Amino acid sequence: MEPLAIWTNQKLDPASADLMRRLTAPHRVIEARATSASNLVAGSRDPAALDAEVLHGQPSVEDILESTKVRFIQLSSAGYTRYDRPDLLDNLKSRGIAFCNASSLYSEPCAQHALAMLLSIARAIPQAVREQADAHWNYLSLRGQSFLLHGQKVVIAGYGAIPRRLVELLAPYSLDITAFRRTVRGDETVRTLPISEIDDHLPHANIVFNILPAATSTNRFFDRDRLMKFKPGAIYLNIGRGDTNDQDALAELLKSNHLSRVFLDVTSPEPLPKDHALWTIPTCHITPHTAGGTFDESHRMVEHFASNLGRFARGERLTDQIA
Amino acid sequence: MEPLAIWTNQKLDPASADLMRRLTAPHRVIEARATSASNLVAGSRDPAALDAEVLHGQPSVEDILESTKVRFIQLSSAGYTRYDRPDLLDNLKSRGIAFCNASSLYSEPCAQHALAMLLSIARAIPQAVREQADAHWNYLSLRGQSFLLHGQKVVIAGYGAIPRRLVELLAPYSLDITAFRRTVRGDETVRTLPISEIDDHLPHANIVFNILPAATSTNRFFDRDRLMKFKPGAIYLNIGRGDTNDQDALAELLKSNHLSRVFLDVTSPEPLPKDHALWTIPTCHITPHTAGGTFDESHRMVEHFASNLGRFARGERLTDQIA
Repeated sequence: MEPLAIWTNQKLDPASADLMRRLTAPHRVIEARATSASNLVAGSRDPAALDAEVLHGQPSVEDILESTKVRFIQLSSAGYTRYDRPDLLDNLKSRGIAFCNASSLYSEPCAQHALAMLLSIARAIPQAVREQADAHWNYLSLRGQSFLLHGQKVVIAGYGAIPRRLVELLAPYSLDITAFRRTVRGDETVRTLPISEIDDHLPHANIVFNILPAATSTNRFFDRDRLMKFKPGAIYLNIGRGDTNDQDALAELLKSNHLSRVFLDVTSPEPLPKDHALWTIPTCHITPHTAGGTFDESHRMVEHFASNLGRFARGERLTDQIA
Repeated sequence: MEPLAIWTNQKLDPASADLMRRLTAPHRVIEARATSASNLVAGSRDPAALDAEVLHGQPSVEDILESTKVRFIQLSSAGYTRYDRPDLLDNLKSRGIAFCNASSLYSEPCAQHALAMLLSIARAIPQAVREQADAHWNYLSLRGQSFLLHGQKVVIAGYGAIPRRLVELLAPYSLDITAFRRTVRGDETVRTLPISEIDDHLPHANIVFNILPAATSTNRFFDRDRLMKFKPGAIYLNIGRGDTNDQDALAELLKSNHLSRVFLDVTSPEPLPKDHALWTIPTCHITPHTAGGTFDESHRMVEHFASNLGRFARGERLTDQIA
């Protein structure tokens, strides 16, 4: 194969940019022409993209459609709302352009984050952190707020790479897990039902994970009516997308103790506005969209891209191929 | 078997006391004669104990040695320092008195707590909880403090019921785990070496769990010299006993960043004095000896006792028998 031109608009620190050049040699990396910071904004156009056979990062849809050279597109994210349009996906298919997201890069940290959220609630760790500020040894109270995961009924809304891995991490706890997705394929690793049936199960669940992707059908999926169907005292965790739940209803249901704990990694908008009630409710915990992150994520992203590029160059099956 | 007299000095809420009477019927429960609160202090004498065939809770060593009736002793704790004396254990053995601790009751919450401590560090949850107080959406900084458990070298000091269960919980993360105990028996479920060899392994470990029991040989086991042998940047977690490490050295090594994070569930003394440096070091996290606790622990304790009592009455093999 002739050396390929690889365009990227991913912001990389110098060490990761260097790693990218080394791992993708003899191919050639073209960085987006940042005449201003906005050139690097995800999804914005860049003339240099039209010269490349490989697009990496968050290319613009217009550039993809206009490019006569592109053969392989590797997104830097797991989410691909911007590209989830029938016209684009049909176009890619008809031209034989490989299109991959980076879901396998983020499923591991996201699944570990989801379990960390749940276990930290089960062991009253946020309360302990707050009480440490006052050197407060609140032995009996914190033990009384702790519980075992053992035997709990768990609902997972969504079934993709993250829930698949989360189910593996949850295996040692003897939980009763049911996942829900739009279309059940039969290859799921846990009992999975059509999401149209979720309302029958929410009143019995102790723990509900929201790992829904962004989509028209998931917008405000957990609205006030649906949250009201939760079992009193349930725990709700969202590591999917902030616009899939009604945040004002979450605040209301936490204040009335209908929900005992909420842990959000995502909000709408992000950052969550400083004056939103969820910031100050003691039973609401927030991580600022950090579920997919690690200190070495640029490094991991470059390695993931380079290994998928190698597969593409050798004509092998790609990781995380969407179209 | 004739109905037995069961003495207990375990403080039980009314519902758990009622459950105890129901689950142990037709045997008869005698509560320690609390003429003052001190009668119920763990390990203190109570004349009523001498009338019972079964002692539950934390009976006094003197009462055990003087009793002519006792046949089965069920401690309410996993630790049994008070009873770990050759004279007592020999006496029990020669008289055929069954002696059990409650380690299987606490191994599950303790193991879940240990993993919660580690995962909350890996996902920067204590930092997020602190920053939530200022409605601070510290996206990049917290992602930069997060890491994957995948592939880390883990040392576990101690190998009893808690480490055995912890190893099961750690199974999904592809960790490189080595446990250390005084006498390797060969039935361990993970690579286990004599604790005399631990110093060769500490300089290579990213994560060190201290789950040592209280004993003369473990007192200040992790002293300053040994903590200095840790790999720079290592994470240290103690859910064993507070007197098995040098707390001033921990504070010093956190301040110099030789240790990147410490999470303690136990201190010496407990509570940790209000003015101890560990309360205020941002990289030190503390739970107030809550690892074994759950909101329903009295209930769980009574169920554990009743089921062991049933085994005793039927002449079956007991759970958690020490002597």
